[in-house]
Amino acid sequence: MKQINGGVTAAKGFRAWGVHCGVKSKKLEKKDLAIILSERECAAAATYTMNRVKAAPIYVTMDHLEDGTAWGVVANSGNANACCPQSHENAELMSQYAAQATGHKPSDFVVASTGVIGQTINIAAIERGMPEVAAGLTDGPEGSDAAAHAIMTTDTSKKEIAISFTLGGKTVTMGAIAKGSGMIHPNMGTMLCFITTDCAITGELLSDALHEVVPKTFNRVTVDGDTSTNDMCVVLANGMAENPLIEWKDDSYTVFRKALHQVCEYLARCIAGDGEGASRLITCTVHAARSEESAERLSKAVVGSPLVKAAMFGTDANWGRVLCAMGYSKAPFRPEYVDVKFASAVGEVLVCQQGMGLDFDEEAAKSILSQDEVIIDICLHEGEHEATCWGCDLTYDYVKINGDYRT
Amino acid sequence: MKQINGGVTAAKGFRAWGVHCGVKSKKLEKKDLAIILSERECAAAATYTMNRVKAAPIYVTMDHLEDGTAWGVVANSGNANACCPQSHENAELMSQYAAQATGHKPSDFVVASTGVIGQTINIAAIERGMPEVAAGLTDGPEGSDAAAHAIMTTDTSKKEIAISFTLGGKTVTMGAIAKGSGMIHPNMGTMLCFITTDCAITGELLSDALHEVVPKTFNRVTVDGDTSTNDMCVVLANGMAENPLIEWKDDSYTVFRKALHQVCEYLARCIAGDGEGASRLITCTVHAARSEESAERLSKAVVGSPLVKAAMFGTDANWGRVLCAMGYSKAPFRPEYVDVKFASAVGEVLVCQQGMGLDFDEEAAKSILSQDEVIIDICLHEGEHEATCWGCDLTYDYVKINGDYRT
Repeated sequence: MKQINGGVTAAKGFRAWGVHCGVKSKKLEKKDLAIILSERECAAAATYTMNRVKAAPIYVTMDHLEDGTAWGVVANSGNANACCPQSHENAELMSQYAAQATGHKPSDFVVASTGVIGQTINIAAIERGMPEVAAGLTDGPEGSDAAAHAIMTTDTSKKEIAISFTLGGKTVTMGAIAKGSGMIHPNMGTMLCFITTDCAITGELLSDALHEVVPKTFNRVTVDGDTSTNDMCVVLANGMAENPLIEWKDDSYTVFRKALHQVCEYLARCIAGDGEGASRLITCTVHAARSEESAERLSKAVVGSPLVKAAMFGTDANWGRVLCAMGYSKAPFRPEYVDVKFASAVGEVLVCQQGMGLDFDEEAAKSILSQDEVIIDICLHEGEHEATCWGCDLTYDYVKINGDYRT
Repeated sequence: MKQINGGVTAAKGFRAWGVHCGVKSKKLEKKDLAIILSERECAAAATYTMNRVKAAPIYVTMDHLEDGTAWGVVANSGNANACCPQSHENAELMSQYAAQATGHKPSDFVVASTGVIGQTINIAAIERGMPEVAAGLTDGPEGSDAAAHAIMTTDTSKKEIAISFTLGGKTVTMGAIAKGSGMIHPNMGTMLCFITTDCAITGELLSDALHEVVPKTFNRVTVDGDTSTNDMCVVLANGMAENPLIEWKDDSYTVFRKALHQVCEYLARCIAGDGEGASRLITCTVHAARSEESAERLSKAVVGSPLVKAAMFGTDANWGRVLCAMGYSKAPFRPEYVDVKFASAVGEVLVCQQGMGLDFDEEAAKSILSQDEVIIDICLHEGEHEATCWGCDLTYDYVKINGDYRT
């Protein structure tokens, strides 16, 4: 697999664009409306938030994808279009406006929204902005860039990737954009992530691959334990790479699933590292566990613990909080077998062996913990399974951003 | 029931004291060692942390309370005495030193510790300090005050209460001290709470009452979602009020259980309001639920949500986050039936009706949310059950306190 440029427009036949239409405040002029569109009909699969309160666009998208196909995505940021009397109607209208502007049917579109819950979306601004987005659609990297920016909320950087690989002698390309930041936690489809590929694959296998990959990538990210009402991960496959159609779980399927995993893992890490207010990415790997499920549960509890997260912000090697978080994870393990190591680009330090604290160089530990990515490496000495989850530190800025998000 | 002065020494036959012995840094001279002692043997019951990683004092106390009796409590703050090679031995030593200083057996003592995990406790300081604590033991309110201060860590105020009530013509008194602050979450026995009473009650009914009350009080508090390794709630009953022994679940038992509930609810609210860095107490009541369990789960999710907590810090009436937290609580409810109201001493404002946002006066809402106690009042319109949980806002100070707790 080769990482290439181009993001969500890298795969053959995909165009994208994004503009400021006015859902976000006019003062800032930040992009807030995007379209991604394929030249051909795509096999389409999606995972959605597990929150019982689902925003209107989730229901509309579920409806539009019932036949397993789509042509494109229309998405806005700045408003979640949730919990308002007109929410459902407005989500339908978004797809109608996108359809009118591009010569398609409303049901050809995935509809996604992200932003504040419970305020009526400025649907007039979306209607006015749609022709401009449609007119801008391009298959160049600037198209992906514009769309990636148009779905950002409190994200500080755009999240984009593309890779290429070979299937049956043909070059297949897969690209994606995502947004994350706050209200992010396992147990969901995901935040917003739109993946495009020119691979030829049946809708059923596309869906299987997505449902295999999301639980091991996006669902292993936690920023703050809050699962949003609007999370959605969608993959569109238009077949234009002309590889032999993937219709069985053969080697080609495995290659495709690995590519999808690489794309999703890359974006999951981006989302964790760019969590609201985050100053560093925290990666926690639990090794030698009796099952992958246990390893995942323990790892999630560690990256999700506010006390561990605050210690990481303070570059404090307070490993007792790591053990404590494991203890309340409800996963079985023997505390007296556990080794804990902190690691980063500048080195590593073993701080706990067989459940007991070791003497260690606090200054060296501080320097290891002050890097952009910190690894909490836990060995259970109980079995052969492992899992990795991703999170970020808890900072003053998280509180600041969320103390006055609406104002 | 009448609230009276005196805290943990209010009930007949109980003395207490606390000193600085040196577990906490000598510079600050903060109290860090306490004893509570009864004149007579007590029926004793306890609930403990549900964390799989339990500190040594928990195991030692479980052992000492196996016969259902105790004479007193020895507790230190500044070190959790957990996850060190000598932890178990040191917890046993604490009870030995307390026994020597007071003329008792080690197994007469409940042993409790709170503070940093994984650093060896300064047991020599505890040995040196014990005679001074024992010498200071007094049944005056200053004894309770000293003990309450000696169990504090990042608490900003001592937590203490006493009440009296009548049983069989006799005045019965119940008093307690507690500490809370960080690493606090439902699913545990509780933080540290020591309750004393002169009520005559069998050990079995004492335990039943405690296990009925703790799930509805302390276990409905969340500060940060972290369940500590050291949580413990202990009640000692010495019978010196000379009321007819409570040995059945009769009216007297009901009165006793109500008294215990009042004491525990008061302290639970204190602990929530004094959560690490908290600037206000958040009380969330869910009404008209189909079961108390659902109501509790929904209410806990709301007070536990970092996004709701940050909004409360920012006095932002962002009710969408309340609905969102309810949605991921895994409790069944119909979003389209939900009403949400914010209330405080200065008024109330309905912000969401039947799952949809209402226009409301943002300035009035801000003023309601800027009080010391804010109530999030949720009506499900589904049944007749309700539950209240308590939490606090998420502030810059939480991050500050926990970014460098050890240093």
